[in-house]
Amino acid sequence: MPLWTVHHTPGIFSDAEKYQLASTIADHYEKVGLPRFYVVTLFQEARPEDFYIGGEPVPVGVRVVIDHIARRNPDQESRRRTARWIRQMLQPHLERHTGLQWEFHVDETSEDLWMINGLVPPPGGSDAERHWAAQNAATPY
Amino acid sequence: MPLWTVHHTPGIFSDAEKYQLASTIADHYEKVGLPRFYVVTLFQEARPEDFYIGGEPVPVGVRVVIDHIARRNPDQESRRRTARWIRQMLQPHLERHTGLQWEFHVDETSEDLWMINGLVPPPGGSDAERHWAAQNAATPY
Amino acid sequence: MPLWTVHHTPGIFSDAEKYQLASTIADHYEKVGLPRFYVVTLFQEARPEDFYIGGEPVPVGVRVVIDHIARRNPDQESRRRTARWIRQMLQPHLERHTGLQWEFHVDETSEDLWMINGLVPPPGGSDAERHWAAQNAATPY
Repeated sequence: MPLWTVHHTPGIFSDAEKYQLASTIADHYEKVGLPRFYVVTLFQEARPEDFYIGGEPVPVGVRVVIDHIARRNPDQESRRRTARWIRQMLQPHLERHTGLQWEFHVDETSEDLWMINGLVPPPGGSDAERHWAAQNAATPY
Repeated sequence: MPLWTVHHTPGIFSDAEKYQLASTIADHYEKVGLPRFYVVTLFQEARPEDFYIGGEPVPVGVRVVIDHIARRNPDQESRRRTARWIRQMLQPHLERHTGLQWEFHVDETSEDLWMINGLVPPPGGSDAERHWAAQNAATPY
Repeated sequence: MPLWTVHHTPGIFSDAEKYQLASTIADHYEKVGLPRFYVVTLFQEARPEDFYIGGEPVPVGVRVVIDHIARRNPDQESRRRTARWIRQMLQPHLERHTGLQWEFHVDETSEDLWMINGLVPPPGGSDAERHWAAQNAATPY
């Protein structure tokens, strides 16, 4: 359910660094109880001529778009907590780049409009979800 | 209005299979009354080193992101019906791949923030919309 | 905060035309008070075999997806005004292409789930935001 799309200019991440970041992200969601296979991370490279900040092509830039589906924050304080939690995942991977602007935002969408392998995922926090998490696989329940 | 973005690893779809899937999707929306040209389907290929599930690069993976604008589901049951309707479109094209995880989710956004060729599309279900559907083109109304 | 993703078939924009469009977009947001560096514009080219309208691969096509975060429209009339304002930015760059279908939609998401360089952006319209705009940089405040 969390879908992370990481737009980046060339040279920001090696393949090994992409793997590390994707693992960090999956670790964090797993720690709060989500099945690990829910976490999809896509990297999309864009040339500076395709990546503009403030109307200027940038040599280095990272823009992360995150879709949250299985969990929804009930109020402003929990949304802000979620933003700080996401910052924790990204900051160690990004702050070593000099002159890099990195930005993220999260969109929250309905869990009713979501399926994995044609199955309706179990309700958040349910026994069935814990079973999916333990198996790390989507199985009929 | 429906915008389908199909993220996939290499080798999942041939160009002919992309065409077939895009046609299937357009057929379904047309059958429920939408102008066929509303339906945009984009395919975006990602190398396994750019496509992670549960923190691991995957040899095969499909992640579909769908934006719905012209129609909005009023309640949970209709959202679930929509999800099952989307499953029908995807499943025949995807279930033959062994070991493939495929996932989709839908985001619903406001029709007030949407234009085609600089025109405000007619209200859903209106005569003007039926005219656009019959012509399969956006014309001033 | 505004994130513009411009999906397009090959040959629609030269690099110089991408730069011009990205500048136009940044100019418009700056004029309404946003820090210029908030505006990120990404171009993503797709072959006709990856870009379908109404189930058919298209030789020319443009589909723009816009995320608005820092500002939210309170009602239908202001959403429609925003759509017309966006049309102004796009139309001069696109209407000269014969046979081109171009479409955009905007998604509005929560400012609480958004950070730049690990910082919570200041509230819209605040002195701190004006300071960021004047500096054109994200600094602790």
